[in-house]
Amino acid sequence: MKYYSYENFKKDTNSLITQIQNSKFDVIIGIARGGLILTHALAEGLNIRNIKTIRAELYDKTNKRDKINIFDKCNLEGVKKVLIVDDIADSGETLKSVTVSLQKDFPEVEFQSVTLFYKKISIIEPTFWINETTEWIDFFWERDFINIEK
Amino acid sequence: MKYYSYENFKKDTNSLITQIQNSKFDVIIGIARGGLILTHALAEGLNIRNIKTIRAELYDKTNKRDKINIFDKCNLEGVKKVLIVDDIADSGETLKSVTVSLQKDFPEVEFQSVTLFYKKISIIEPTFWINETTEWIDFFWERDFINIEK
Repeated sequence: MKYYSYENFKKDTNSLITQIQNSKFDVIIGIARGGLILTHALAEGLNIRNIKTIRAELYDKTNKRDKINIFDKCNLEGVKKVLIVDDIADSGETLKSVTVSLQKDFPEVEFQSVTLFYKKISIIEPTFWINETTEWIDFFWERDFINIEK
Repeated sequence: MKYYSYENFKKDTNSLITQIQNSKFDVIIGIARGGLILTHALAEGLNIRNIKTIRAELYDKTNKRDKINIFDKCNLEGVKKVLIVDDIADSGETLKSVTVSLQKDFPEVEFQSVTLFYKKISIIEPTFWINETTEWIDFFWERDFINIEK
């Protein structure tokens, strides 16, 4: 398990902003929860105010393939190019499900994606990513805050 | 102008989680962009997966009062108690407009709010806040990332 600190995140996010800067996105869609902090940072760096979020959750790990529930439909009328943001493409199921679902609803919109981490076993490769890994990543947002049992 | 670092944010957010932990919220609504990183951190700490975001923007600073445009309607059917999240209650116009708009659409839902900073001149006092200030706050998410001109 590898701790991923805010300082690492800052450095990586700045590299991503440099990679992405020439692609003109109208909208950023963050996948909650994992992609939210990166979504905020990229929106600041890329000067994009039009932010939306989608909640995607695994709901069945007993099947051969994980199944993803997607909540909250986005309205993308008039939008040309969208950047989908998540922390990691691990199995890739979440990122793929979200992309396929959005593409189906908005066939004329161009979707690209970005993650901080990418595993080769992922069924989708994000358009932009920084770190290839095989490890479990312990993101600072999962470690740095007191966790209250509900 | 006061630089507000990630380390300060971490300490303050943990204090907020302790303040909020006994209030049982079903949903967190983050105000984009400013409230997004805090939204993610609180959602992790409070173990809340149901996150929504609202985009609110000033659209006229020439009038006596600032006017706020609110994008993206939320669906809160069946929800009882919602925590609205922003970085700062400065004039308070954004937080008040969002709260009033949501309360009008969902009269049976209880709305509370949280910010990191609160100014006494704000027209609304958040239910939870950490720092009272009169200064302009330079949040780390506005400073730590390369800013690309669009």
